[in-house]
Amino acid sequence: MKHPIGIYPGTFDPLTNGHLDIIKRSSELFDSVLVAIAHSASKNPRFSVQERLEMAQLATKDFSNVACISFGGLLADLAKAHNARFLIRGLRVVSDFEYELQMGYTNTSLNPQLDTIYLMPTLQHAFISSSIVRNILEHNGKISHLIPESVFHYILERTQCM
Amino acid sequence: MKHPIGIYPGTFDPLTNGHLDIIKRSSELFDSVLVAIAHSASKNPRFSVQERLEMAQLATKDFSNVACISFGGLLADLAKAHNARFLIRGLRVVSDFEYELQMGYTNTSLNPQLDTIYLMPTLQHAFISSSIVRNILEHNGKISHLIPESVFHYILERTQCM
Amino acid sequence: MKHPIGIYPGTFDPLTNGHLDIIKRSSELFDSVLVAIAHSASKNPRFSVQERLEMAQLATKDFSNVACISFGGLLADLAKAHNARFLIRGLRVVSDFEYELQMGYTNTSLNPQLDTIYLMPTLQHAFISSSIVRNILEHNGKISHLIPESVFHYILERTQCM
Amino acid sequence: MKHPIGIYPGTFDPLTNGHLDIIKRSSELFDSVLVAIAHSASKNPRFSVQERLEMAQLATKDFSNVACISFGGLLADLAKAHNARFLIRGLRVVSDFEYELQMGYTNTSLNPQLDTIYLMPTLQHAFISSSIVRNILEHNGKISHLIPESVFHYILERTQCM
Amino acid sequence: MKHPIGIYPGTFDPLTNGHLDIIKRSSELFDSVLVAIAHSASKNPRFSVQERLEMAQLATKDFSNVACISFGGLLADLAKAHNARFLIRGLRVVSDFEYELQMGYTNTSLNPQLDTIYLMPTLQHAFISSSIVRNILEHNGKISHLIPESVFHYILERTQCM
Amino acid sequence: MKHPIGIYPGTFDPLTNGHLDIIKRSSELFDSVLVAIAHSASKNPRFSVQERLEMAQLATKDFSNVACISFGGLLADLAKAHNARFLIRGLRVVSDFEYELQMGYTNTSLNPQLDTIYLMPTLQHAFISSSIVRNILEHNGKISHLIPESVFHYILERTQCM
Repeated sequence: MKHPIGIYPGTFDPLTNGHLDIIKRSSELFDSVLVAIAHSASKNPRFSVQERLEMAQLATKDFSNVACISFGGLLADLAKAHNARFLIRGLRVVSDFEYELQMGYTNTSLNPQLDTIYLMPTLQHAFISSSIVRNILEHNGKISHLIPESVFHYILERTQCM
Repeated sequence: MKHPIGIYPGTFDPLTNGHLDIIKRSSELFDSVLVAIAHSASKNPRFSVQERLEMAQLATKDFSNVACISFGGLLADLAKAHNARFLIRGLRVVSDFEYELQMGYTNTSLNPQLDTIYLMPTLQHAFISSSIVRNILEHNGKISHLIPESVFHYILERTQCM
Repeated sequence: MKHPIGIYPGTFDPLTNGHLDIIKRSSELFDSVLVAIAHSASKNPRFSVQERLEMAQLATKDFSNVACISFGGLLADLAKAHNARFLIRGLRVVSDFEYELQMGYTNTSLNPQLDTIYLMPTLQHAFISSSIVRNILEHNGKISHLIPESVFHYILERTQCM
Repeated sequence: MKHPIGIYPGTFDPLTNGHLDIIKRSSELFDSVLVAIAHSASKNPRFSVQERLEMAQLATKDFSNVACISFGGLLADLAKAHNARFLIRGLRVVSDFEYELQMGYTNTSLNPQLDTIYLMPTLQHAFISSSIVRNILEHNGKISHLIPESVFHYILERTQCM
Repeated sequence: MKHPIGIYPGTFDPLTNGHLDIIKRSSELFDSVLVAIAHSASKNPRFSVQERLEMAQLATKDFSNVACISFGGLLADLAKAHNARFLIRGLRVVSDFEYELQMGYTNTSLNPQLDTIYLMPTLQHAFISSSIVRNILEHNGKISHLIPESVFHYILERTQCM
Repeated sequence: MKHPIGIYPGTFDPLTNGHLDIIKRSSELFDSVLVAIAHSASKNPRFSVQERLEMAQLATKDFSNVACISFGGLLADLAKAHNARFLIRGLRVVSDFEYELQMGYTNTSLNPQLDTIYLMPTLQHAFISSSIVRNILEHNGKISHLIPESVFHYILERTQCM
């Protein structure tokens, strides 16, 4: 009997319906799923790592085998620390594919025990990304159909601008 | 506790080291893996479905949680018949990615319970495909570094040409 | 005042919901749209050009500014014959994009008056293609959600196999 | 009789021969074309929105059915405000294609009446982009073959460096 | 002092202006260039290997350091037989790129001394391919702007159909 | 007899095993190879141009026909100044391919004598890039398998953090 743990890493700035779809499907494959929110300081995220963590926790609170953490180092080290052998990544577009191929090889070169599985988005979420959400948000447009309801309310309370 | 079954479908004409790598890694994620060899009559395979099945069985005989079958219908139906919720597919190149994206959406439209996970090849197998093996074989070139040893001997006995 | 005519060429083997979506949207842009069904003998179509024409006519009969024809020569010549300056093509995937880029340049080199406009599929049709429909049909799977109802009944009467 | 309006949005930093080619061809398809210059503050444009607007007006002054405006909000809202149902976008490369596919779905999710048509560049303009122009300009290289003459003189007067 | 030999392999069915452009540019890099025409029987070429060889010889007769041969086996073996360390390949589109990446790795796995250099087409030839020429030829369209004059006359004499 | 010079331009921030592989293979094709390190001020490199030059010189000191320089202007001008007719570029991924296609056309439009040849990475270096090295370095991860030993020691002495 296997008890695999999957780590789903990302910046989640903010967590979208696309992310939540990946988390839900991963939770049916793995015994436990760890949503790992990277500090990603070099990307100048719109939301702080603490805010991103809180949004992820709100969005996933109904999944009993999903936990959320933030992290600052290398994925290869995070996986070792959690005794996890699998990373989970979403693949929406060709450029994702190539980036992920490179990162997968890199991670394996740093931690040969580490494997990555990829999920493609459910059709209705195929176009959603955090950067699209941030862009619409910047212009006070409608984002409620792109992110989980709990994330929407979290943002609404903090920005008062929608 | 989950007991997921993964189906790894393909033509396997013939099974390569790239396929075996995906099978090995899948066998560490799923409780059981079913290698499903499509008849693929419209592709005019070089090896008969019976030969392809025998090669797959030889190559995977050391994996206790891997079984091989042949099939002729739709993947969505095969998955239902085996009560399997996950397909496994390898992704080597961009054109694979787009084809798989289409097929994944199609399969979900036929069987909403069905999900697909993707694995990228280990670096040293990144360029191997069955069509490359067949092409070299056609010109009596060296293929022993591209396919499992048992598959190589199986082909050698039948073609006497290497 | 412009009165542009758009030609929407293809094999339509058979016409899908994705094609119908392009036709509908084109009919709102052009004064008249000509659906041009290529003989495509070299592709060995499953349906005869006469059958494909009849299916296209059934599917588009409610659009007052859409007509359907079959043709056997070069698109550049067809456009000249109909005094049309615009081709319409759907773009679903990257490989479509590159093929269309080549064909667009080729058509312009043969008929400098000819331009091509591209439409991307509506999200829910993003994965539909004639080859996927034919593949499911070959295995007696469900295709009624992928093609117009009139096309479905046309095929049903002729194949008695769904 | 249709009287469609097409909006051609972009940053136009600066407007190139590639843009002008798209504008010219669009002006033959649509009754009127609106070149919409986005503020794009987050991209740190080299030229101010006012300068970009002036360059676009100079370059398009001979097209009687083309007008230029600047805008700061969402395209979906701009289109509503101008009662326009069509966006026009150029497609040069695969990464354009994927970005546009995402943006098209996003815009439709915000304004279901909005459609987007795509044009591919005329062959001789296939490699031209504003970022290439800016990069050559930064090193005092020759740009006169890449941008309209009026835009070239506009830049020349302001930079005195070519 | 190096005296590198470059082999430019292909089916050349028929040789196009795009091929000739690659040959001309290669002849300025390598001491000698060998245009190697593959039998490619499995592709069902329109022209026989003898015809394709004659067309290539006609098109390249003014290049003193270019020779043409036909061959039937593996490229890796051909290169060994001619003591050549470099293959030359043209890259027009993304799908070329991925195919060539696979073939380059395969060739190196068969002959570690063998390297491949890639050239991209000159802009005006970017869209030309042998399959486009064959397709236009099949419909008696204009091909004289796509292939060398000597190749055009060779085809004209044999087909009497343009 | 030809004596071609090849220029291998880049930012080399820092030079990786992938770069060194391209340099080694280029040195077997060209009479002399010039590694040209761009100032790339707009990219905010991690290492100064002087440091990047020193690392390149250390890594290539055993190649008798390779020299390293830094430069600040346009490649097309650099090539003229060195009487070089060939640029050398590595191609790892599809997005490289499209960027290079654009840059190649641009360079030819500025200097018609200039041609570019492309090399694909040796398989074991396929995933290595300077940005991956910088990213791992930022998190104090292992980079010694990704860069030449001399570059590793150069970085180690300056950062004291591995």
